[in-house]
Amino acid sequence: MAKKPIKAAVLGASGYTGADLIRLAARHPGIALAALVAKGHAGQPLAQIFPHLASLDLPPLVTSSEVDWGGIDVVFGGLPHGTAHEEIGKLPERIKVIDMSADFRLRDPRVYAEWYGNPHSAPALLEDAVYGLTEHHRDAIARARLVACPGCYPTAVLLALLPLARAKLIAAEDIIIDAKSGVSGAGRTLKQNTLFAEAGEGLSPYGIGNHRHVPEIEQELGAAAGTSIRINFTPHLAPMARGELCTSYVKLAGKTAAADLRAALAEAYKDAPFVRVVEDGTIPATQHVRGSNYCHIGVFADRLPGRAIVVSAIDNLVKGSAGQALQNFNLMFGFDETTGLEQLPMFP
Amino acid sequence: MAKKPIKAAVLGASGYTGADLIRLAARHPGIALAALVAKGHAGQPLAQIFPHLASLDLPPLVTSSEVDWGGIDVVFGGLPHGTAHEEIGKLPERIKVIDMSADFRLRDPRVYAEWYGNPHSAPALLEDAVYGLTEHHRDAIARARLVACPGCYPTAVLLALLPLARAKLIAAEDIIIDAKSGVSGAGRTLKQNTLFAEAGEGLSPYGIGNHRHVPEIEQELGAAAGTSIRINFTPHLAPMARGELCTSYVKLAGKTAAADLRAALAEAYKDAPFVRVVEDGTIPATQHVRGSNYCHIGVFADRLPGRAIVVSAIDNLVKGSAGQALQNFNLMFGFDETTGLEQLPMFP
Amino acid sequence: MAKKPIKAAVLGASGYTGADLIRLAARHPGIALAALVAKGHAGQPLAQIFPHLASLDLPPLVTSSEVDWGGIDVVFGGLPHGTAHEEIGKLPERIKVIDMSADFRLRDPRVYAEWYGNPHSAPALLEDAVYGLTEHHRDAIARARLVACPGCYPTAVLLALLPLARAKLIAAEDIIIDAKSGVSGAGRTLKQNTLFAEAGEGLSPYGIGNHRHVPEIEQELGAAAGTSIRINFTPHLAPMARGELCTSYVKLAGKTAAADLRAALAEAYKDAPFVRVVEDGTIPATQHVRGSNYCHIGVFADRLPGRAIVVSAIDNLVKGSAGQALQNFNLMFGFDETTGLEQLPMFP
Amino acid sequence: MAKKPIKAAVLGASGYTGADLIRLAARHPGIALAALVAKGHAGQPLAQIFPHLASLDLPPLVTSSEVDWGGIDVVFGGLPHGTAHEEIGKLPERIKVIDMSADFRLRDPRVYAEWYGNPHSAPALLEDAVYGLTEHHRDAIARARLVACPGCYPTAVLLALLPLARAKLIAAEDIIIDAKSGVSGAGRTLKQNTLFAEAGEGLSPYGIGNHRHVPEIEQELGAAAGTSIRINFTPHLAPMARGELCTSYVKLAGKTAAADLRAALAEAYKDAPFVRVVEDGTIPATQHVRGSNYCHIGVFADRLPGRAIVVSAIDNLVKGSAGQALQNFNLMFGFDETTGLEQLPMFP
Repeated sequence: MAKKPIKAAVLGASGYTGADLIRLAARHPGIALAALVAKGHAGQPLAQIFPHLASLDLPPLVTSSEVDWGGIDVVFGGLPHGTAHEEIGKLPERIKVIDMSADFRLRDPRVYAEWYGNPHSAPALLEDAVYGLTEHHRDAIARARLVACPGCYPTAVLLALLPLARAKLIAAEDIIIDAKSGVSGAGRTLKQNTLFAEAGEGLSPYGIGNHRHVPEIEQELGAAAGTSIRINFTPHLAPMARGELCTSYVKLAGKTAAADLRAALAEAYKDAPFVRVVEDGTIPATQHVRGSNYCHIGVFADRLPGRAIVVSAIDNLVKGSAGQALQNFNLMFGFDETTGLEQLPMFP
Repeated sequence: MAKKPIKAAVLGASGYTGADLIRLAARHPGIALAALVAKGHAGQPLAQIFPHLASLDLPPLVTSSEVDWGGIDVVFGGLPHGTAHEEIGKLPERIKVIDMSADFRLRDPRVYAEWYGNPHSAPALLEDAVYGLTEHHRDAIARARLVACPGCYPTAVLLALLPLARAKLIAAEDIIIDAKSGVSGAGRTLKQNTLFAEAGEGLSPYGIGNHRHVPEIEQELGAAAGTSIRINFTPHLAPMARGELCTSYVKLAGKTAAADLRAALAEAYKDAPFVRVVEDGTIPATQHVRGSNYCHIGVFADRLPGRAIVVSAIDNLVKGSAGQALQNFNLMFGFDETTGLEQLPMFP
Repeated sequence: MAKKPIKAAVLGASGYTGADLIRLAARHPGIALAALVAKGHAGQPLAQIFPHLASLDLPPLVTSSEVDWGGIDVVFGGLPHGTAHEEIGKLPERIKVIDMSADFRLRDPRVYAEWYGNPHSAPALLEDAVYGLTEHHRDAIARARLVACPGCYPTAVLLALLPLARAKLIAAEDIIIDAKSGVSGAGRTLKQNTLFAEAGEGLSPYGIGNHRHVPEIEQELGAAAGTSIRINFTPHLAPMARGELCTSYVKLAGKTAAADLRAALAEAYKDAPFVRVVEDGTIPATQHVRGSNYCHIGVFADRLPGRAIVVSAIDNLVKGSAGQALQNFNLMFGFDETTGLEQLPMFP
Repeated sequence: MAKKPIKAAVLGASGYTGADLIRLAARHPGIALAALVAKGHAGQPLAQIFPHLASLDLPPLVTSSEVDWGGIDVVFGGLPHGTAHEEIGKLPERIKVIDMSADFRLRDPRVYAEWYGNPHSAPALLEDAVYGLTEHHRDAIARARLVACPGCYPTAVLLALLPLARAKLIAAEDIIIDAKSGVSGAGRTLKQNTLFAEAGEGLSPYGIGNHRHVPEIEQELGAAAGTSIRINFTPHLAPMARGELCTSYVKLAGKTAAADLRAALAEAYKDAPFVRVVEDGTIPATQHVRGSNYCHIGVFADRLPGRAIVVSAIDNLVKGSAGQALQNFNLMFGFDETTGLEQLPMFP
């Protein structure tokens, strides 16, 4: 690799998303991790908060103001929503940004304010932001300055439904998405319901009817279908650390059959290295994509006439966050899309 | 308790269902466990296959032919479907039977043959069998000779939907039930996908479109609604030992609102000691019913106009099997419905 | 039960220990739960912080100063160490106290100050406190005003080793105790290492050489052996909610054999309803005592000549805390030792 | 990579060890997976038994006799012990063998027969076999035809204790090793105690005093110390899929202190890319090595004078099996030791 490595800074290096980005980027042949920003831990070595990364020879954690931004080519944003748009708004325009927060995903700042409870502080940037669902926006991502990577749930849902909505194979109404996520999706913030003793050996829905990933899914599905779409999206917390499975119940348009959905998905992803439409008879499982950038999608006929079931599985921290961010980096900086993402799923 | 204890035999004492029945019945003040049948383990003490029950002073496991049926008043059936109807068909008519298998749940032997792959060997018994969903068939259960306890999934689904179907508050169409079960639901039979290393840290659907609990749910919902009903029922295997959560997506009839569903359920279960319609704002979780005979039900408005979400949670081995069997026993033998079932849920 | 129920207050009703005490005491025929104290949650119904107890008809949470202490007969203390001795020191002398904290376990206030980092604020009470390891101090507990229930680890360790130390069957030196605990042992306090995503799917030691249960074990073992004892005690955090297993590696005294240890334990506990010395060939497992007040103990010959292995398993929240507290209550108030503790272990 | 890839066959491709070898080898730049042998699954595509590997373009599973051995350069053995020595004994001498079974680890065929219950069928091969604990036998491994990779437990134990035994810093007596393993260590064979519902939420020892990894550890420790050694080795089954943690309690020789052990280990592994002696104050955890080829080792002073505690953590399927096999492959075929093993640990 004769090319000079791209110098990257990570914002939010003390969270799970930041840690997984570092884990993957540290092995990417074209990236040099030049700055790790984690306000609350400035001065500490990364190994102290993430002992699993102790073998890496990286600079200590710093505050944002300690970074020499002149030497940075790209920023990976792993900050919580609300904080992200403020920090990213201050960066020199020269620096490309791949944001994993929610702050640049919604095109309409009013929708953002409605769902996130605060006005957007960098609405100008919103206009230029490209929605980073890699498989569907490759060209725009390659040219973008700011890429807003999708949320973990939207990634799993949209990879499954976008080609179907676009081809008008499914009705825009009565789309019911029952989603299940591992606990790492809730982040490293301390909450009682994510303690091992409470989240373990149990399962329950949460955020029924008001999960913040709803507007993002509706925005993208609606754009693809060319019509306004309202969905039911009901997430559940499952007793596993990683993994996300979305079971989508859809109405078939006209005379469409489940097999047509499968064919459309197979066609849509025939050149996508990370999206697999599984064979008929195989059922996607989060176990089969764990730790990898893969998304597995299966299509099933429904007992209810005129309906079908689409199941998609990802690792929420990889394809649902850090892996997709790196995939977008590859497009933006001219690497092969799979560079640094070759890890196969880990099973068991 | 001056009454003479009822002498009980347990068929299938080496399975999870049998073990949980023994665990509960051993503490029931009106039951004497007189015979434990487990063909493959005849001659062994129970403690050898279930060390957690070693403190009980019980007879060793025997084969069915070793039992002195003359001394038995009631049989709890914990056999696999297919085997159950043969064994139960041979019992003296004098003995009451509380069966936890699938063999006497379907009224139509043709439907049984279609879903279970074998003709029913005791169709005459089918006619007399009472479907043992306690809260909905108390009188019939109290008078029955043979009670067919519902499957674990049907218990959670029907407790949530039956009052709504009966009152025609929900449409008979487009009922979509996304169900999640702990691994004990698959029984003690050895299967690769229920190994810890495979079922742990992962989640996936199974039996999509053809799970054997479908006809049972359709039969009962249809009877309540007075019309034929087809449902979507998609079960998922979740990485927990116990617990079952059903998220049911339903269409509201006419001008019905989610609040009406809640009110109807609250009314239906106002005297039911084990069914709780949780307060508005609370979300059912399997953690909150673990190890107990409770069913928690919540109702939520849907983002999709004209639809609602009903969530129900049970412990699959207790309310979903052995606990409900004991609850039916109480009705059949004149005990208070809660006798032997007072255990509160265990959390964490 | 004609007797008037004993009126109980629970201090620390919002923690796991408090919750499990309430879960068990609510079903005890001789206890009326009259006051639930939880400073930070005063005014809230218990169901709000512990939905699994929502079926109970209990008074709302209050602060200590809101309690009418005149109507209270007994206090169950579930406060963290440090707080406990202050609250308990203020209670009217008439009220009996069963404390589950660490504050009254160590007889020497200097040892307390050394290990807990603060001077003891109620040293006078220390003198009267009885160490509540039920099986070994029944008479003293029955007469006590203040019972200091052992820590969860000491319970498992001492039940296994105390009879052996007393009979001088094991050497006072080189006692090595490798202990493993479920995550609920760390309490409901928010800590990063007890998050599901961090404690799950992993195992590690903690508090090596300085865990606060060490002096308690040394105090009791030393008293039994009539000599000063120093132990190695190395606890590990295991990915389960409940359960504690202690593997103790001991030196045999003189010509003692492993079988002698087994015999001594069997004799010591022949009338103890909750301690089982498992049969030769059976291995204790936390699964086999889960949710119950049982302690299972096994003895094994060591490959190293002159040594043996003693394995003990308990549920840390029941026999290791709330269950043992209730067992002591039974002795103090004249109930049968097993009252309210009849629940069998739950497996799976 | 201009070199022609080395053509590899995998024996036992349907087990966990085989699958993890394939997962890693498929991404090794110098390996071509030419034949996957799995007798019971011959004819099936690998994807059918391991859907997580479906993205690989590999030949279908075959029986041993279907392989064209002329085209194979190296064999990775993932067969169960007992079967391995028969299959490997039949291979052409030209083919190098990296065996992950137990069959070539013990130098003395009588010891093998004693512990494994059958005579060894290829004793001649035993003499040439090199024990594949990479860090301690690099030169011999590089020259070997047949490398017998250590068991998972021996790997974790020996990496921690071998340098200490060799330098005579620890006594040859009273070495007590309390080991904890994830459930994948038991393999994919169906057993009741490894079902999710039984192994989950619980912990217990097994194979006390007679685990088959004992003679292997004693053989290697004894050779290093130059004396016969007997150890206590007590393994425990912990509710996690991957990971192995060994807590070793050792006697210090003469005036040795814990710090001397740490220094000796740091020196021994200063050039080892995968063994990390963690900083003072850090505690090894299986979470911190999960999915990687790393071994973390920590040393701690004991409360018992003259003793110390050494803690080592590995991923049992990677450093404990497939990863170490690949590391040995690299030495045998002239690759950098880390090739194909760069994956960082995955946390959470």
